[in-house]
Amino acid sequence: MSVCREAIHHRPKSNLAYAEDEETVRLRLRAKKGDLDGCQVLHADKFDWANRNLTGLEKVRSDSRFDYWETSVKPDHRRLCYAFLVQADGEELWFTEWGFESKADNDLPTAGTDQPLHYFEYPFINPVDVIDPPEWVADAVFYQIFPERFANGNPDINPDGVEDWGGDPEQDNFFGGDLQGIIENLDYLDDLGITALYLTPIFESTSNHKYNTTDYERIDPHFGDTETLKRLVDAAHDRDMRVMLDAVFNHCGRQFEPFQDVLENGRDSEYVDWFHIHEFPIEFEPRPSYDTFGFESYMPKLNTENSEVKSYLIDVATDWIEETGIDGWRLDVANEVDHEFWREFRRAVKEVKPDAYILGEIWRDSRPWLRGDQFDAVMNYPFTYAADDFLGEQSIDAATFTNKINRFLMRYPEQVNEVLFNLLGSHDTARLKHRYDGDERKVRVALLMLLTFRGTPCLYYGDEIGMTGGEDPDCRRTMVWDEADQNRDLHRYVSDLINMRARHRPLRRGTLSFDRDQCYGDQVVYSCSERDAAERITVGVNRGESPAKIRVPSEATPETLVATTESEIPRDGDSVFELPSMSGAVWK
Amino acid sequence: MSVCREAIHHRPKSNLAYAEDEETVRLRLRAKKGDLDGCQVLHADKFDWANRNLTGLEKVRSDSRFDYWETSVKPDHRRLCYAFLVQADGEELWFTEWGFESKADNDLPTAGTDQPLHYFEYPFINPVDVIDPPEWVADAVFYQIFPERFANGNPDINPDGVEDWGGDPEQDNFFGGDLQGIIENLDYLDDLGITALYLTPIFESTSNHKYNTTDYERIDPHFGDTETLKRLVDAAHDRDMRVMLDAVFNHCGRQFEPFQDVLENGRDSEYVDWFHIHEFPIEFEPRPSYDTFGFESYMPKLNTENSEVKSYLIDVATDWIEETGIDGWRLDVANEVDHEFWREFRRAVKEVKPDAYILGEIWRDSRPWLRGDQFDAVMNYPFTYAADDFLGEQSIDAATFTNKINRFLMRYPEQVNEVLFNLLGSHDTARLKHRYDGDERKVRVALLMLLTFRGTPCLYYGDEIGMTGGEDPDCRRTMVWDEADQNRDLHRYVSDLINMRARHRPLRRGTLSFDRDQCYGDQVVYSCSERDAAERITVGVNRGESPAKIRVPSEATPETLVATTESEIPRDGDSVFELPSMSGAVWK
Repeated sequence: MSVCREAIHHRPKSNLAYAEDEETVRLRLRAKKGDLDGCQVLHADKFDWANRNLTGLEKVRSDSRFDYWETSVKPDHRRLCYAFLVQADGEELWFTEWGFESKADNDLPTAGTDQPLHYFEYPFINPVDVIDPPEWVADAVFYQIFPERFANGNPDINPDGVEDWGGDPEQDNFFGGDLQGIIENLDYLDDLGITALYLTPIFESTSNHKYNTTDYERIDPHFGDTETLKRLVDAAHDRDMRVMLDAVFNHCGRQFEPFQDVLENGRDSEYVDWFHIHEFPIEFEPRPSYDTFGFESYMPKLNTENSEVKSYLIDVATDWIEETGIDGWRLDVANEVDHEFWREFRRAVKEVKPDAYILGEIWRDSRPWLRGDQFDAVMNYPFTYAADDFLGEQSIDAATFTNKINRFLMRYPEQVNEVLFNLLGSHDTARLKHRYDGDERKVRVALLMLLTFRGTPCLYYGDEIGMTGGEDPDCRRTMVWDEADQNRDLHRYVSDLINMRARHRPLRRGTLSFDRDQCYGDQVVYSCSERDAAERITVGVNRGESPAKIRVPSEATPETLVATTESEIPRDGDSVFELPSMSGAVWK
Repeated sequence: MSVCREAIHHRPKSNLAYAEDEETVRLRLRAKKGDLDGCQVLHADKFDWANRNLTGLEKVRSDSRFDYWETSVKPDHRRLCYAFLVQADGEELWFTEWGFESKADNDLPTAGTDQPLHYFEYPFINPVDVIDPPEWVADAVFYQIFPERFANGNPDINPDGVEDWGGDPEQDNFFGGDLQGIIENLDYLDDLGITALYLTPIFESTSNHKYNTTDYERIDPHFGDTETLKRLVDAAHDRDMRVMLDAVFNHCGRQFEPFQDVLENGRDSEYVDWFHIHEFPIEFEPRPSYDTFGFESYMPKLNTENSEVKSYLIDVATDWIEETGIDGWRLDVANEVDHEFWREFRRAVKEVKPDAYILGEIWRDSRPWLRGDQFDAVMNYPFTYAADDFLGEQSIDAATFTNKINRFLMRYPEQVNEVLFNLLGSHDTARLKHRYDGDERKVRVALLMLLTFRGTPCLYYGDEIGMTGGEDPDCRRTMVWDEADQNRDLHRYVSDLINMRARHRPLRRGTLSFDRDQCYGDQVVYSCSERDAAERITVGVNRGESPAKIRVPSEATPETLVATTESEIPRDGDSVFELPSMSGAVWK
C-alpha cells in the first residue's frame, strides 16, 4: 500500500477534533494530498462498544500538501471513542492512537482487550469547554479608527502645536482627532453599514498612537474624558453599533506612575516588581536595562505575573466595560503576555459581559490562544498576506492562494473561523491602496473578498474613500471629510458590499469552499453556504489581464449581487459569466 | 530532493517547542525516519534580526515512523524567532511556519519583508507558563494502597459482615482494612524505600472501593476519621513520606445527599442543577435517566460547571490539604470533567500548597491536560502496555518496544516525562504477576524497568511480595502480612531497586536514551543520564530464551548495581556482559 502513513494525522481535542456545539464533535483527518480514496470513522460510546457505527468522512479541503477529511458525529451520551478506516489502492487500514493496522488482519482494530483503549477518544463534551464566541461578532462589520486622525470634534482639547488637518503625518505630530469627532461621524459610519468600531488606544499617553499608556484609568485629555466615551458608546449602541477598545497590557508608557516611581526610588519603590528591571541604576541606552516592547525604552514591559499588576489591569478591563458599556477588547502584543494572565482576563471580562469580544493581536498561527480559554479570535494577518500575494504582488497563482487559505481554515474550529478578524490593513501596515500601487480595480477586488470571506471583516478608516499612505506613519493620515476629495464611487461600492453581506446570511455564517476546478492561474471561485440551508453565494475573482469564464453553480439562473466593475458582468449562457480583467463578482 | 515534506512537523508552544526553564526553549523537529542528514535552526530576537545564530540539532529519538531532532536555545531577551534548515541528499531546505523554501533560492528564508513574519515564533518566555511540577515528585517512589485490603488496624470499626483476612475478594465484600492499618505498617513501607503513598478513595461510601462517594467531607467510618487521617499524614511526614488521596469529582455516589435530595424533591430540589438529569421522574433502569460514570446508576455524574458544585468540590480539595497536610490529589476519570474545572482546581490547590502533586487518571495521550494549566502528570498506562507487550505477551520485539517508548517520550516536555506516574498495574488491572503467568523472572525484569525508567514509579501494594490476582475484584485481595507467605527474596530485590534509584540521581533526573544498536530482537539497552553530568546508568534487558551479550558504554569498568538474577552476571571482557534468559541488570 503506497499511502504515506507519515502524513496521516489526527489528534483529539485539537483543530482536528473539537466540539462544535454541546452535542456534536467535528472530526477531521489529515492525509497526504491525493492519497486516500475514502475514509470512514468507527465510533461508539466506550461503555457501549457493541453499539458502534461506521460513518463516512468527506474530503472537504486541500492545501499544497494535504487533504482534509471531515465529518460530524453526535454521540448519544456525549462520550466518543473512535478509529479511522482509510482506503487507498484497494486496501484498507485502521488508524488509531496507537498507529496503523491492516483491516484484512483485524476487522475491528483490537489490542488484546475488549475495551478499545487504543482508540482515539473525545472523552466527554462539557458545554463550558465548547468554543463559543459572541453571537454578534459573526454578523459584524468592523471599522478601525485611529482616533488622533479620524475627526476633530472638539478643538478646545487640541494638543499644543496641532497641525492643520490634512498635513503630513510624522512620528510625533498631532492633528487633534478626538472622541467627539467620532461621535459626530457615527451617522457616516452607520450609513456605510458599519456595525462595530475598533479604536486604537484612547487612554492618556504622550504619543499620537497612545500605545505607551500614561494612565489606564483616564481617557487621554486630548481625546475627551469618560463622559465623552460614554456618550460615544451610547450613541453607537443607539445605532446597534458595538465599540471595541485597545488594551495595551504587555507594556505601559514611561510616564506610567508606577514606572516613574521605580525611576525615582529604584529598588525601594513599592512598584519595583511591576516591571522586569535587570539592574539599577536604570539605563535607557544603548539598550534599556529593563524588559520593554521591542527595545523601546519608552515602553517598559509590565510584569503581568505580579498579582497586583494582574488585578490592576484586569480591573481596568472590567471597569471600563462596566462604566461605559464597551463591547470588547483588542489585546496589543497579546502573544508576549503570559497565558495565565489571559485566562484570568477572560474569566473576569466574560463575567461582567458574557458577549464581550476578546481579540488578540497575533500575526501568526494562534492555536495556543484559541482553545476557548483565552481569546475569541485573532487579527487575521495571514489572510492579508495571502490576498496581497495573489492580488497585489501576484507572486502566487490561484491554486497556491487556495491552498494557503485552506490551510489557514483548517487551523481552527469553524466557530473560530467564523469570527476571525479579517483585515486588509491597519495602523501597522501600509494602506491597501498604497500596497496595490493605487490600482483601484485591485482594491475593489480585495474588498470584495474581504466582505465575502469566512470571518468578521474590518475596514481601516478611509480605505472606503480611497485614502492611501505607506508604512507608519504615512498610513495614519487624517481622514478626508470633504466629499469632493473622497472617492464616492468606491464608497458606494463598499456600502453595497456591506449591505450584501448583511442581507445574505451565508456570507456571515456559511462555510467557505473553493471550487477547485475553477481555481487555477488567475481565477478563484468560492462559495459560502450553511449546512442544510438552501441559499448558496458564489464569488468569482479574475486577477488576470484577460477575461475569465466563471461557471456559477446554481439551481436557478444566478443573479449578480455585486461586481467590482461599474458595468454589468456579461453572461455566456445561463450560469457562465465572463469576468473582465482584474475584477470580481458575487452571485446567488 | 526526496525528503518527505509531509512528515516534517513543528509547532511552537507544543511538545515540540516549550520552555524548559525560565530562560531556555527546547526545540524539536519531527521528520520521516532516516530522511534527514542534518538539521539546524536559525534563531534571533525578532527585534534584533541582525544578531542571528545557526544552531545544530541532534537526532535524539526515533519511533517506528519518525526521527526527532532536538536542541535547546537560550534567547538573550526571552523572545525567539526561528526557522529550520534541513539537509537531505546534499540539498538544503528552509522550513518555516509558511512551509518550505530551497536554500539555494534563499540564503535566508525571506518573504519580501525585513521582519521575519513567516518564521516560527516562541514569542516570550513567561515564567508562570513554564511547566514546573513539584520538585519532590521526580525523587519519589509511590506505593498504591487500596485501603479496604491493606491492613486492619482497628477491628472496632469493621463493617458488618466483614470476612476473614485472606478470603476471596468479591465485588461487594469487606475485609476491614483501614487507615490505622496503614499507620501501623508505615515502617514496613519506609523500610522498603517507599517515599509516597497513593490511597484509593477514603471518603464515606457504601462500596469497598469507595469510588461512589456518599460524603466528601467525612472519612469513611470503617476507615477511621479525620483525626486518623491526620495521624497517618503526620506519621508519614515524620518518615519523609508524602500522601496522595484520590479525588472522585467526575461523579458521586447515589447516597450523596444532594443527589438524594433530587431523588426526593425532583425538579424542586435546590440541587437539581448539581447533576445532569434528563427527565423526571428519575429512572435507574434499563439506563439511568441522568448522566453517570459509564452507565452505572450508582455513580451520578456531577455537573462541575455549576458554580456551587465547583466551589464545593474545590473547597473539599483545599480543605483536606489544609486540615490534614496531604500532598497531592489523584483525579479519577479526569478526562470526563471539564477543563475549566481543572484549571480552577489547580489554581486553588497550588495556592494552598504550591508543591501539591496533581495527577490525572487518563489512559491515553494526555496533551490537552498537560500544558501547565491543569495537571502535573497522568497515570502512565501506555508504559504499562508497552512493558506487557514486550515482556509479557512478547507480541512486539525490542525495536518496536523502543519505538513505542520513544514515541511516548516525545509526547510531552521533559519536565512532564520526569514526573509521569509509571505503573505496572493498579486496582483497575489484573496484577502484574497474574498477567505474566506467575513467571517471577518476568516480574523482576518489569520491576527493574519500572524502577529505572523516566518518570515516577508506583508499586501496587503486595506486588513486592509476589501477590497475584486477576481482573477486578481479584486484584484487590487482602495484603499478605505473614512473612512465611511473602516472597521475601522478591521483597529484598524490590528494596534493592528502590535503594539504587535513590542513590543514583540519573535514574530520577536523567533523560532516558535507548542504545538503538543494542535494541533488537529480545534485548533492550538504555541509559539514564543528566545533561553535563558525569554519571551514566545503563540498563540491559534480555527477554529471550538464550543469553544475550550486552555492551555497557562506560569510561571505566562498569559495575553491576542490581540484577534480576540471584547470581552474578557473567562478564565477557571489560564492558560486555552476558545476560541470562529473561533477565535484566543495571550498571554504572
